[in-house]
Amino acid sequence: MSDSVRKAVILLSGGLDSATVLAMARADGFACHALSLDYGQRHRAELAAARRVATALGAVEHKVLPLSLDAIGGSALTDSNIAVPTEGSAGIPVTYVPARNTVFLALALGWAEVLGSTDLFVGVNAVDYSGYPDCRPAFIAAFEQLANLATKVGVEGGRFRVHAPLIDMGKGDIIRTGVGLGVDYSLTVSCYQADENGVACGMCDSCRLRAAGFHAAGIDDPTRYRT
Amino acid sequence: MSDSVRKAVILLSGGLDSATVLAMARADGFACHALSLDYGQRHRAELAAARRVATALGAVEHKVLPLSLDAIGGSALTDSNIAVPTEGSAGIPVTYVPARNTVFLALALGWAEVLGSTDLFVGVNAVDYSGYPDCRPAFIAAFEQLANLATKVGVEGGRFRVHAPLIDMGKGDIIRTGVGLGVDYSLTVSCYQADENGVACGMCDSCRLRAAGFHAAGIDDPTRYRT
Repeated sequence: MSDSVRKAVILLSGGLDSATVLAMARADGFACHALSLDYGQRHRAELAAARRVATALGAVEHKVLPLSLDAIGGSALTDSNIAVPTEGSAGIPVTYVPARNTVFLALALGWAEVLGSTDLFVGVNAVDYSGYPDCRPAFIAAFEQLANLATKVGVEGGRFRVHAPLIDMGKGDIIRTGVGLGVDYSLTVSCYQADENGVACGMCDSCRLRAAGFHAAGIDDPTRYRT
Repeated sequence: MSDSVRKAVILLSGGLDSATVLAMARADGFACHALSLDYGQRHRAELAAARRVATALGAVEHKVLPLSLDAIGGSALTDSNIAVPTEGSAGIPVTYVPARNTVFLALALGWAEVLGSTDLFVGVNAVDYSGYPDCRPAFIAAFEQLANLATKVGVEGGRFRVHAPLIDMGKGDIIRTGVGLGVDYSLTVSCYQADENGVACGMCDSCRLRAAGFHAAGIDDPTRYRT
């Protein structure tokens, strides 16, 4: 690397968490390369949200990569025959997309290596989350270890870091942090079944976590709800 | 799982190694679900080869997933502006595709979880290989560990295994093993710059390793070469 700008790859879904992470990475001084995956998700409004967020928060580049996870299926988010639940349930919910964060981080890793970046940022959260296995600290640590074995950078003595700055934060803290960094959450879409304009259902896991977060933060919820 | 058939997901490139692995997995009694990635590779003839191999070796299913790794670039295999070398070189060659095996194994993992399979097979090889970091035993072990942290199966007490049966084998041994299991290597394409009919250049790393393998095995090389 001849330049001194530190580059980072940020996984940007268009939701509340990843928007906050993008703002945090920028505040840390990184030139932010945002990566979104068009993976056949039923809530496609989040891709439009990701584009708005990348622009608003000054990403130097935003790439949307198509990836047909719907060809694999197995989740309410990628298989239109599986309904999104509107009540909480025990265990890992049907909105879990098999190996999603492993796939997304792997793609972020590949792009980072091409860019000459060794910093990945991901908005996983182990507190107010939906019970997904690939949102836990042990998963992030294992991926970081893998990244350094998998790559040319790792072999040649570099060191990838997987930053998951939200991992121990509650949703209220995340929102307060983002507001402090200038995040406009009205640009984001969290709902698993948002309509094409990004209007939220107000009933799915993701909507309920988000609404509780604004309540906990004592900040007006800018989300547009159908109900 | 109500049925007793053991399912496996096999990463199938259409080359010599992965065809051998498919034959080995079938010989082990697995119902084989083959996965190929259409990742913008310049040697697209290998996808046609993968289809032939999957049929010939009795895969119960063959999925070809599109994935735009050319949007990331950084490799002679995915960027038409980077030439494929025709002589050996020190270090990791420009045909290295950043994080390729991490991405491919992650997708195989997701599909396995949907299928109710806990067995992944991959044809990486640490002996006669091209110097890729993601072909080493430590990488495979790290991915296996990650898989069990990343998934619903792992959380619920299941255990993924990443089988890399070629990892300690020389190319000659691989070919002898495959011939013993009925693999028709004339169906496979290894060349990094094969033409659309699968005719090989005879000069790239992959061609040279393959030719040396047939020589070492004392088996006639069925490869069709341009030169």
